[in-house]
Amino acid sequence: MSSKRLMIPGPTPVPPAVARAMSTEMFNHRGPRFAELIADVTASLKRIFQTEGRLYILTSSGTGAMEAAVVNFLSPGDRIVSLVNGAFGDRFASIAAAYGGKVERLESPWGEPLDYGALEARLREDKDLSIRAITVVHNESSTGMLNDLEAISRIRGNHPAMLLVDTVSSMGAVDVPVDRLGLDVCFTASQKALFLPPGLSFISVGERAWRAAAESRMPRYYFDLRLAEALLQKGQTPFTPALAQFVALREALQLYFAEGRENCYARHRRMAAAVRAAARAMGLELLVKEERYASPTVTAIMTPSQAPGNQIQAMMRERFGIEIAGGQGSLEGKTFRVGHLGAVDELDILAAVGALEACLQSLGLPVERGAALRAAQEALHQ
Amino acid sequence: MSSKRLMIPGPTPVPPAVARAMSTEMFNHRGPRFAELIADVTASLKRIFQTEGRLYILTSSGTGAMEAAVVNFLSPGDRIVSLVNGAFGDRFASIAAAYGGKVERLESPWGEPLDYGALEARLREDKDLSIRAITVVHNESSTGMLNDLEAISRIRGNHPAMLLVDTVSSMGAVDVPVDRLGLDVCFTASQKALFLPPGLSFISVGERAWRAAAESRMPRYYFDLRLAEALLQKGQTPFTPALAQFVALREALQLYFAEGRENCYARHRRMAAAVRAAARAMGLELLVKEERYASPTVTAIMTPSQAPGNQIQAMMRERFGIEIAGGQGSLEGKTFRVGHLGAVDELDILAAVGALEACLQSLGLPVERGAALRAAQEALHQ
Repeated sequence: MSSKRLMIPGPTPVPPAVARAMSTEMFNHRGPRFAELIADVTASLKRIFQTEGRLYILTSSGTGAMEAAVVNFLSPGDRIVSLVNGAFGDRFASIAAAYGGKVERLESPWGEPLDYGALEARLREDKDLSIRAITVVHNESSTGMLNDLEAISRIRGNHPAMLLVDTVSSMGAVDVPVDRLGLDVCFTASQKALFLPPGLSFISVGERAWRAAAESRMPRYYFDLRLAEALLQKGQTPFTPALAQFVALREALQLYFAEGRENCYARHRRMAAAVRAAARAMGLELLVKEERYASPTVTAIMTPSQAPGNQIQAMMRERFGIEIAGGQGSLEGKTFRVGHLGAVDELDILAAVGALEACLQSLGLPVERGAALRAAQEALHQ
Repeated sequence: MSSKRLMIPGPTPVPPAVARAMSTEMFNHRGPRFAELIADVTASLKRIFQTEGRLYILTSSGTGAMEAAVVNFLSPGDRIVSLVNGAFGDRFASIAAAYGGKVERLESPWGEPLDYGALEARLREDKDLSIRAITVVHNESSTGMLNDLEAISRIRGNHPAMLLVDTVSSMGAVDVPVDRLGLDVCFTASQKALFLPPGLSFISVGERAWRAAAESRMPRYYFDLRLAEALLQKGQTPFTPALAQFVALREALQLYFAEGRENCYARHRRMAAAVRAAARAMGLELLVKEERYASPTVTAIMTPSQAPGNQIQAMMRERFGIEIAGGQGSLEGKTFRVGHLGAVDELDILAAVGALEACLQSLGLPVERGAALRAAQEALHQ
């Protein structure tokens, strides 16, 4: 059976109307039709980001936007504090270092909360305000950890360091009020909560960061947001945009706002709660222990000793056509991850839980039939 | 009437089967289905590039591949000769300079041939072989100039400078035997001869360039081909790829090879000849004078004094739904450009010529009805 239920933390399933929009005929990306389109979708994306600042659409994956978040606002030699407790926090630090940033990593073990106290202490001792930026990943899809942006924003306080924030697997699914939290730069990608195929990324820039862009000396061209700004004034992008994703984006945004932001956040919280309740009911251990740090969009579950490696992932695919993710990086073989992000609903979660129950039983785990489904159902309807 | 005939030098019209493939369901980009897909399309692309070397698929526009062609193989301070006779040659030089290259521009006026003699002289006087690379745009879509890669390859001879070649608007439509010509790095994009929507680019790397990549000190991450190589071994890309374009790419390649490379080259030559013959029959001046330099994929025509600015472009769009391109950069308002690239055929050219005749008559030019069509028809069937 080919995979028909995609439950990885991106790409996420594409609704039929959005998929159909991808079949658009081509048109001139330097003509009036595109100008109208980019103005419309940019305005809608700002509502999701909850920002009155600038927002640009890039033809790249989320990592391209991550690179843009580094190279536009900093210079070689700049001191950067990188908060790292997963694969994407690590990637953010690596990009900053690749472009000559003097990166200080504040690391926590993968699956454990960031060391908020260490950040606070580091900023307090930075008497000459030499720290130029803090990089943080809001939702670590490698671990299912939701890092606390409210806390980081509060700790940053009046320190002039810019907050550069990866919300690739949270924006749209989790409330991220960019302006209220003072997130200077914030980015996401199309194939996550906004249920488009991959190929576009979105990046917001606040006033302070925009001023920094004028002085940044990191080399850049494809991701140079000064070029993006100059062309956006004319209703264009500097380089040929992924037109099909642009057309599908308008469709996706209409679906998104038809559900509504608050409803969407609540749905993701319910789906996460159901997966966590089901895992516990099957006697499985969750990687992220504390509820307040549990990601609403992806849950990492420790691989039980009875099914080492990727056995569960393979059985879910082959027997039920459900595609879940394995462990990432240092967690490969040690966890598996269930994505509950984008255009999936509570009934998809019940289906996945039912399949997981059956797989674990086949693998000889002491799993009571229906117990995980009942736990999930209770969590969904609390 | 909305534009229904897209005749710009990219994006080009997408055939129905390719458009339908864009509506693909999503799947795991780190699973077996993607591994099979990327191996298949990479092998087919190598046939188009006529290379036994390495080839990578990037999620970006062609300019992203241009950046990759610079940052992977060079170091800050490297001496680079940039051949410039149009907007894209200029862009190539700008990227090399942005990343710290010591760029020497060998410029010719836009629409005129490159100064091959100057390149030959510059290489001859480079006794200590300090020139590390030569950048060149094969087909300048800003002017409709086909630069002579055979000549450049011959002039480079045994000089160790790498040839970095933009074939964005030629590869697939024009014969570019990458290995025979010794093109060390060569790239194109999806929305041109391969009639896909924009969003992917393709870059080939020869052995010498690959060795240079190990020593390159230009900063890079998203476009780092060492990461692409490491992941391609596992049937993956380092970052989430534009999956829909990947699925559509297989469809497009099947259509491409069903016509056959040689037939495709011949079709583009015929279409270009027809447009040029029609322009002359209407008394219009061509930007590129010499036939041997005339681009098979796009033709720039001087704006007649009776219809200054973008009048012809606007009339073609509003009256006939044909989208042609205006002049680019320093040629804005001075030329208009007819694209004949990708999934367009000889009958599309007749339609465009018929529309252009009618527009010019309306604008009061002394154009004999049917003369341009007859000239085009004769050129097509020579």
